[in-house]
Amino acid sequence: MEFKISKELIKELELLIQENKEQDVLHLLQDMHFADIAEIMEELSEFDAHYVFNTLDSEKTAEILLELDEEVREKILRKLSAKEIAEELDELNTDDAADIIAELPREKKEQVISELEDVEHAKDIVDLLRYDEDSAGGLMAKELVKVNENWNVLTCVKEMRLQAENVTRVHSIYVVDDENRLKGRLSLKDLLTTSTKTPISDVYIPKVDYVKVDTKDVEVARIMQKYDLEAIPVVDELGRLVGRITIDDIIDVIKEEADKDYQLAAGISQDVEADDSILELTKARLPWLVLALLGGFIAVKVSGLYEGAMEEYGVLFFFTPLIAAMAGNVGVQSSAIIVQGLANDTLSGSVWQRLFKEVKLSLLNGLILALILLLGSHFLLGVEYIIGITVSIALISVIVIASLIGTFVPITLNKYGIDPALATGPFITTSNDIFGILIYFSIAKVILGF
Amino acid sequence: MEFKISKELIKELELLIQENKEQDVLHLLQDMHFADIAEIMEELSEFDAHYVFNTLDSEKTAEILLELDEEVREKILRKLSAKEIAEELDELNTDDAADIIAELPREKKEQVISELEDVEHAKDIVDLLRYDEDSAGGLMAKELVKVNENWNVLTCVKEMRLQAENVTRVHSIYVVDDENRLKGRLSLKDLLTTSTKTPISDVYIPKVDYVKVDTKDVEVARIMQKYDLEAIPVVDELGRLVGRITIDDIIDVIKEEADKDYQLAAGISQDVEADDSILELTKARLPWLVLALLGGFIAVKVSGLYEGAMEEYGVLFFFTPLIAAMAGNVGVQSSAIIVQGLANDTLSGSVWQRLFKEVKLSLLNGLILALILLLGSHFLLGVEYIIGITVSIALISVIVIASLIGTFVPITLNKYGIDPALATGPFITTSNDIFGILIYFSIAKVILGF
Repeated sequence: MEFKISKELIKELELLIQENKEQDVLHLLQDMHFADIAEIMEELSEFDAHYVFNTLDSEKTAEILLELDEEVREKILRKLSAKEIAEELDELNTDDAADIIAELPREKKEQVISELEDVEHAKDIVDLLRYDEDSAGGLMAKELVKVNENWNVLTCVKEMRLQAENVTRVHSIYVVDDENRLKGRLSLKDLLTTSTKTPISDVYIPKVDYVKVDTKDVEVARIMQKYDLEAIPVVDELGRLVGRITIDDIIDVIKEEADKDYQLAAGISQDVEADDSILELTKARLPWLVLALLGGFIAVKVSGLYEGAMEEYGVLFFFTPLIAAMAGNVGVQSSAIIVQGLANDTLSGSVWQRLFKEVKLSLLNGLILALILLLGSHFLLGVEYIIGITVSIALISVIVIASLIGTFVPITLNKYGIDPALATGPFITTSNDIFGILIYFSIAKVILGF
Repeated sequence: MEFKISKELIKELELLIQENKEQDVLHLLQDMHFADIAEIMEELSEFDAHYVFNTLDSEKTAEILLELDEEVREKILRKLSAKEIAEELDELNTDDAADIIAELPREKKEQVISELEDVEHAKDIVDLLRYDEDSAGGLMAKELVKVNENWNVLTCVKEMRLQAENVTRVHSIYVVDDENRLKGRLSLKDLLTTSTKTPISDVYIPKVDYVKVDTKDVEVARIMQKYDLEAIPVVDELGRLVGRITIDDIIDVIKEEADKDYQLAAGISQDVEADDSILELTKARLPWLVLALLGGFIAVKVSGLYEGAMEEYGVLFFFTPLIAAMAGNVGVQSSAIIVQGLANDTLSGSVWQRLFKEVKLSLLNGLILALILLLGSHFLLGVEYIIGITVSIALISVIVIASLIGTFVPITLNKYGIDPALATGPFITTSNDIFGILIYFSIAKVILGF
């Protein structure tokens, strides 16, 4: 169960490939799960990965294709003809096949589709390609089991058997009318305990959760989690049953969403991975850094305004990084809690209550931190008391204001339909740096009178 | 499908409760999903929430209990007798019942267990309470369908029917030997197409994925995702089948893990929510802030070392927040990408390759940013060229070193079994602030010679 790819295994495989011992390669891989083979292929050179792929039979390779990293998959697909790709896709469920086709270059896309053998399958895949990736339509598969409300139990069981052949796991049996409109669902138990002549309309459960094709994927995820659903049917604008989404698709949505929020908080602006190219990584990382740099310019300007204090109170300038850092940290903490609350739908009460709570919280934190600062600046840093007091008072004010900004900004962004996660990370740290320094020097000016 | 609690609904409900119209309350809530009722109860006052809970029948209330926020659930449970709680738990699956019991105060725990009516159920729950929350044992439910390898198909089908009554969804049929050791699994299809006298040992699939009771929950999540499993059996030290984990439990693990990483990155040290008490929030937020403050002390000290430059090059001190901010931002970006790569198991290559790539990447970013800084410091900030050049050169060095620290620290923590996510957030920003300022002034000293 605890499968880990050993270096020995990879070496052995590479050797076998070098010696072109196809049978031995097959033997080595035959009992392995396709997810493990995919992992192994990612470790191999392009040539060796191709060799493995070509050695295995298409039932296995189709599943392996799905599990591969997008980059490796692209390399494998590039060397396959349209017909070969179509053969792989014929083995897959419509949603998975559509996902792979969507990654192909435009021209190859059409070739592959025209080579698909199963016409129904091809039609379904083409249909799925129309939908936005981030919508229920983009997530759903066409494979499902449905029965007509006008059938009786006997016809129903017969038809279901036929349909079930194409469906890996039957989660639910959906009931539709003559126009294919979703009417309800059927419990397998009821079906088996009812006389075979009973019309379906007498036994089906008319209450069924569903989503529309254009429902956002995160909303689908929310609904399925909230109502503990393992599958949910998808209907079009006219209420016709067009597909179903299963819970494993939702896991990907949840992970992607979490990854996205995490990256935004870390100042990375698009979906990248450590193994992406330097150019892609730069594109994802540079924009926020430029923003932070421009914010830094303003901070320099603000500090410059108080140049006059330098002669007498130069030590104040040693504290600007500390003040800026505290402002940034407090702001990020506040905004992260709000962003998470919004994502999990656990925020209650009005904005004003939220801000008021934040004031109390930050005052408490601020007082404790200011006390530490006061003592530390005297005993550790050997700074004059008046400077220590000034910095401490400024710290409290900065913390309160930074936490208010950290609370207010994401709530406001969310209100206007902008992703509140944008307000975490460099954006909040940069603006809090500026405000922090401004407040710090203003208070110092009042107290010290420079 | 798009259920949103309206203020009107809450008002109407509150009014009905005030007038003690129990039947009307029931009528209003009768068609609602328990997850929605739980959401409504969270919006009500404690008294009203109790009223709703007492009005509904126990089949529904048990499910509602599960959906409630931990805090609200505690309030509800506090007013129920041990017997009443036991009645609720009798309606639930063992894993859910065990989770709720685990939250009770110690004394009440034992009372509730002794009041459970179904002895088998009670035994299973007590058994589950032994396991660590974060392990497969803590996640699993006792409800599953299993058959003995020595039975024939007919006995098997009969026994399965009995067992299936206690299991909400049958994901798999597991095969065990006389000692209850997991031997394999059974496909429903094979079972139905085989003669009733065939012994199970002839038809079962001996290959089955499983986890051990002490497997970590994140590892269970990884395995289930990798192999696309909707359920996985759990065995004890002797290989005996003791439970099974379903995919919906795994979603919670994935979300918790993502939330935890996110909070660590934001400098929040324990699992808190926006609605927690100020004391809890302070406990979660203050530690990192204190650390950042102490780091700030060091930054003050470092700046102080270069006090001599203040007279001639005072403007240098205006740039310290900018340098510190850039060092922090770059470090967080680098560490976040590594932490995510580690979490998703997508990091390849050696540490040295990784660091070398990071050097190239940060040199590229650094050069672009330094150029912007050089131009900006002259045209926007009106700083002398020599200062602009000094700060720009320092910026490149700081960016390279910050990104190396951001890459190296999480990889090293991970190597020693420490959660690499610790290296994101305040830890990395604070240490980068200090290094950044030190490098900045060192370079300035060399160039400007103060």
